[in-house]
Amino acid sequence: MPLPTPLIEALRATFGADLSLAEAERVAYSYDNSRLHALPDAVVFPTTHAQVEALVRQCREHRVPVIARGRGTNTTGATVPVDGGVVVSFERMNRIIRLDPDNRLAIVEPGVLNGDLQQALKPLGFFWPPDPTSSPWCSIGGNLACNSAGPRTVKYGSPRENTLGLRAVAGTGEGFRAGTYTSKGSTGYDLTRLLIGSEGTLALITEATLKLTPKPTGLRTLRATYRDVSAAAHAVARIMAQPVTPCALEFIDDVALRLAHEHGGDSVPMAGAMLMIEVDGEPETLPSAVEAVSRAARGEGLESLDIAQTAEETQALWSARKALSPAQRTISPNKINEDVVVPVSRLPELVDGVKQLAARHNVLIVSFGHAGNGNLHVNLLPRDDAERERAHACLADLFDLVIRLDGTLSGEHGIGLAKRPFMPLALQASTLDLMRAVKSAFDPDGILNPGKLLP
Amino acid sequence: MPLPTPLIEALRATFGADLSLAEAERVAYSYDNSRLHALPDAVVFPTTHAQVEALVRQCREHRVPVIARGRGTNTTGATVPVDGGVVVSFERMNRIIRLDPDNRLAIVEPGVLNGDLQQALKPLGFFWPPDPTSSPWCSIGGNLACNSAGPRTVKYGSPRENTLGLRAVAGTGEGFRAGTYTSKGSTGYDLTRLLIGSEGTLALITEATLKLTPKPTGLRTLRATYRDVSAAAHAVARIMAQPVTPCALEFIDDVALRLAHEHGGDSVPMAGAMLMIEVDGEPETLPSAVEAVSRAARGEGLESLDIAQTAEETQALWSARKALSPAQRTISPNKINEDVVVPVSRLPELVDGVKQLAARHNVLIVSFGHAGNGNLHVNLLPRDDAERERAHACLADLFDLVIRLDGTLSGEHGIGLAKRPFMPLALQASTLDLMRAVKSAFDPDGILNPGKLLP
Repeated sequence: MPLPTPLIEALRATFGADLSLAEAERVAYSYDNSRLHALPDAVVFPTTHAQVEALVRQCREHRVPVIARGRGTNTTGATVPVDGGVVVSFERMNRIIRLDPDNRLAIVEPGVLNGDLQQALKPLGFFWPPDPTSSPWCSIGGNLACNSAGPRTVKYGSPRENTLGLRAVAGTGEGFRAGTYTSKGSTGYDLTRLLIGSEGTLALITEATLKLTPKPTGLRTLRATYRDVSAAAHAVARIMAQPVTPCALEFIDDVALRLAHEHGGDSVPMAGAMLMIEVDGEPETLPSAVEAVSRAARGEGLESLDIAQTAEETQALWSARKALSPAQRTISPNKINEDVVVPVSRLPELVDGVKQLAARHNVLIVSFGHAGNGNLHVNLLPRDDAERERAHACLADLFDLVIRLDGTLSGEHGIGLAKRPFMPLALQASTLDLMRAVKSAFDPDGILNPGKLLP
Repeated sequence: MPLPTPLIEALRATFGADLSLAEAERVAYSYDNSRLHALPDAVVFPTTHAQVEALVRQCREHRVPVIARGRGTNTTGATVPVDGGVVVSFERMNRIIRLDPDNRLAIVEPGVLNGDLQQALKPLGFFWPPDPTSSPWCSIGGNLACNSAGPRTVKYGSPRENTLGLRAVAGTGEGFRAGTYTSKGSTGYDLTRLLIGSEGTLALITEATLKLTPKPTGLRTLRATYRDVSAAAHAVARIMAQPVTPCALEFIDDVALRLAHEHGGDSVPMAGAMLMIEVDGEPETLPSAVEAVSRAARGEGLESLDIAQTAEETQALWSARKALSPAQRTISPNKINEDVVVPVSRLPELVDGVKQLAARHNVLIVSFGHAGNGNLHVNLLPRDDAERERAHACLADLFDLVIRLDGTLSGEHGIGLAKRPFMPLALQASTLDLMRAVKSAFDPDGILNPGKLLP
């Protein structure tokens, strides 16, 4: 169903050449990294907050869906316009408005790339902690929409812990500010965190005030291999129970190591499981931190523990992890990438459970991820249609296992389309009802990113 | 207006002897540390989540207000039952349900005292960062309701950064769970943070899953005095712009020092202003941390810098800060205790501005507080009725100044009754409208803590 003519005219008045109705361009904005797709009726490229207000008001008048989009790196279909409507690409709202190290904050537009912000902060001695693997090409707006995190979360938190305030436009077309320019505040309801992780279903973020952290000047990398996944998972629990919190604590299982070895060569160790551990801090503090973490990494089932002394050695240690993504792609173009999370002490049960599910459903599964948060990327790699079907059955069992272990569906990818049917597994009916009521409060006509997140 | 008889009967069936209608007891629950008061029609003392559900359903049926109460240590009148109704004192829901250091979490009922939890965590090597000055006698539920923080917030964050999940009862009487048992999650809207700081206006918290932090085994205390408040405020900004974040960075102005000196004797230094600074970490890391913070503390206007070497010296350094509260009480029983917050770099302007306001309105003002967050406790100490009237006029100018400096009304005390009329200064009309819509989503009949927070 094409857009009503009066809406097209209104959009043209607001956006001029920054409105696109051409099919070629609409196709480019019809999918994201989930590989799901649906054609939008139009794409707009706002450059100001006022344009976003006008857009939402105009679309609301005609009950036309509005789908916010960063750079489409998400894996859940959260930016796929399943009901058509207008995709709002924030790629041209990409100004860093203020870098303010004295107040440990930065004010940015949503289209700023995570990596560009980190580059701009480097000479000031600060960083913004969330660091998804897609950091060079994902946008801050997208990071906020999905509460996307990354390895550093284990020490520094996710966007919810690293955002002070937002400017946004609700589904009514009303612009508003939430939060503060201060590192502390107790002035009314926390709408800032409510918007973070809401995947564009409550409001469109047009500006973010981010909390910055001083960048430690020292970093040391350790690599530990273990007899089996269970031994590695127990080491993770030991590391997290002592006071020195690493700034990365990544787990790679035996299947993933074998894959990486085939693809990356002999620099990748063959083992039952591997942990990559990083500790940061001022240089004088690193020897004692490395010692504390090493002590915890040792124990039943440890096979090797290497501590990089140089930048080259650090790179060599990370080679296995780096070889992993291309290796997976060679096996299955239809990778199903999950990011379940459990309490750290349940990680041994999760990795064991995943192995059993892989065997029972006869599906190739590769597990790795941010073990310090109990956040495992469970990648199902179906090699043909039959295995693909088995993979989907396996997925339901995986979520079931995770919930039984007191975990939840998503650590950092969000819900989108992909996990929406599983939400009632993770959340009570009364919680979902409240979320729906909150949705109505922000978006009474349900025009913001319909069909996502809430079942 | 007394409670309807059917409601009294229903409450009696639910609570038995844990319902109190006696005036003597109602009086005890009619006020909080704001010294405002209003008599409730009944007080109940739940011991289970199910009782809280029944209570809210019963009160909703009769449109009777329900006011949650921790230990009444708040200073804003947030627990005063201005419209009568039933005060729900959580003092008997005070079980620590689970201490789980392996997953860095604790599950508690809302009536657990902050100090009791810290004591229980000590042997495990962990702590819960929020540490209001009232920590020995304030409840976790109250801390969550007001997003109460304390000195350690500068390094470790407020309750919003240190809570993983909640169980609660909405204004509909429906129980629900929000959040996770994991240190990371992106499964739907963040209702956990939305409830934190909502002062019992959205839901009644019946259980909290708190994020624990390993307790560093080392701590060093520094005391710096300065020629004037402006020099000290500039030192704060320098300290916060370097990478070693102190775990306390407290500011005390000249008026406060003079008061403390009169009350506490010669161990309290006389100076233009003073900073109390604490750094924590593993013992090996402390010398370099102390050196980094000392370097930043030095500069224009520094008069002395003392570093405590022993526990006794640490106590001596803190003596001025400790003498402050009793000293204030001797001067004015009607202290107006504000907790405004500004970006750290605006602190010099704030302290200068407060001095000008004190002179212009002819009011005694003592300023001290959590400078590392830009959070200043501005205490107006009227000594008679005329000064009390001038103090109230001064307050309006203070909030005006704070907003002009990009600050906000409250850092950690919340809004309650006291700051409610000033909310439109701090928040746009559209933001307040959204907060009201959220309130309706959780509490459609407006029975939860009416007359608080939202104007």
